[in-house]
Amino acid sequence: MTTPYQLYYWDGLQGRGEFVRLALEEAGVPYVDVARKKGGMSALTASLDGEQVAHPSFAPPVLRVGELLIGQTANILMFLGTKHGLAPRSQDGRLWANQLQLTIADIVAEAHDTHHPISSSAYYEEQKKEAKARARDFREKRIPKFLDYFEGVIERNPGRGGYAIGSRLSYVDLSLFQLLDGLAYAFPNTMAKLAPSYPGLFALHAKVAQRPNVAAYLNSKRRIPNNETDIFRHYPELDK
Amino acid sequence: MTTPYQLYYWDGLQGRGEFVRLALEEAGVPYVDVARKKGGMSALTASLDGEQVAHPSFAPPVLRVGELLIGQTANILMFLGTKHGLAPRSQDGRLWANQLQLTIADIVAEAHDTHHPISSSAYYEEQKKEAKARARDFREKRIPKFLDYFEGVIERNPGRGGYAIGSRLSYVDLSLFQLLDGLAYAFPNTMAKLAPSYPGLFALHAKVAQRPNVAAYLNSKRRIPNNETDIFRHYPELDK
Repeated sequence: MTTPYQLYYWDGLQGRGEFVRLALEEAGVPYVDVARKKGGMSALTASLDGEQVAHPSFAPPVLRVGELLIGQTANILMFLGTKHGLAPRSQDGRLWANQLQLTIADIVAEAHDTHHPISSSAYYEEQKKEAKARARDFREKRIPKFLDYFEGVIERNPGRGGYAIGSRLSYVDLSLFQLLDGLAYAFPNTMAKLAPSYPGLFALHAKVAQRPNVAAYLNSKRRIPNNETDIFRHYPELDK
Repeated sequence: MTTPYQLYYWDGLQGRGEFVRLALEEAGVPYVDVARKKGGMSALTASLDGEQVAHPSFAPPVLRVGELLIGQTANILMFLGTKHGLAPRSQDGRLWANQLQLTIADIVAEAHDTHHPISSSAYYEEQKKEAKARARDFREKRIPKFLDYFEGVIERNPGRGGYAIGSRLSYVDLSLFQLLDGLAYAFPNTMAKLAPSYPGLFALHAKVAQRPNVAAYLNSKRRIPNNETDIFRHYPELDK
């Protein structure tokens, strides 16, 4: 039997691939993390825009399902969520889940730009001064604005259990876990100060971390440790 | 009869709302551009996160369809595209359309950050130096990288007509039109130089502009002129 899913994402970092890994791990479906195997990086590049690829992707993550290639994190999650019980069943519910996931994608992109505000192809050290200014804005204005929003989403959800949508776990909850986790790694001082204002979000983070499949994953070698080649980077000077 | 769609977006700019407007105009369905009516701005704000809103949005555009509120541009377009024949019919095709739309959203966000690289809540004039550096990177590296990608998508599409997907117009084509249009407004020198390298994209831009419903819209007062409160802004110093 062949493994149904192949994930193409850079080795050595959680990055945007991590939102996909968490969904695959929670669902308990087998997958190959292609770039982490021998020769995997060239397979990754070929899958992005090799000449025979009908639907090239601009950037990883890309999920291969048989002949189908799916790119863009939120798009992959919509596919997996629908297939593995990690998305609402109604069309309206799925639109709502996708809307929330796209808003998570927005803050993730902004988190990246705190250490690369001028050019994603130049080193952090070359744009450190600008990074300090952008990180300050992110810490003081953007993080609170986004977390206010997501806390409000949990508060307004009439379903039990403290989830973002309804009374069951969805891929949005897994992504909110990863968002908080990454922010806490990159901006520990900021997040420690903010935590008391967001009881719903932090409770959800703890709840997701305790799910058996997620807990097993987080304790495994499959979970790549946080590091400074990633989207969420800890530079103390950006968290003053 | 009530108008089926109400669009909530800031008055006075095309912005992300324009991608939605183009789909509504091409589909020929009636809609109300709420914020452009008297009292519309407060209706907009209330629709975003008023206390009685079950599914608040982080930011406009938001589309109201009866009781349903849909936020995030790509999410709205997925809904409208499916409903009004502006999306592929197969599930695989719809995932592909959504993937392309999300990649368009990525470059749109980067275009915004050329004039606001440090803080979206500070004036351009306060971050002009950083804007020059970011705009240079955008012009020299990011625009070519994204346009290479989209040109390749059109080239690899086996369908006739020069569209992004298959042999029929989709919302992705409308959004590529708007992307090129905005880039040409903001960066006329850069885009004039690049144009010969992207025959597929520029032909698509011309083709979309000539569609009867789109042409009528572009000539109407409903099309808000480009200006410097928008995502695509023309500052000559950013297009050297």
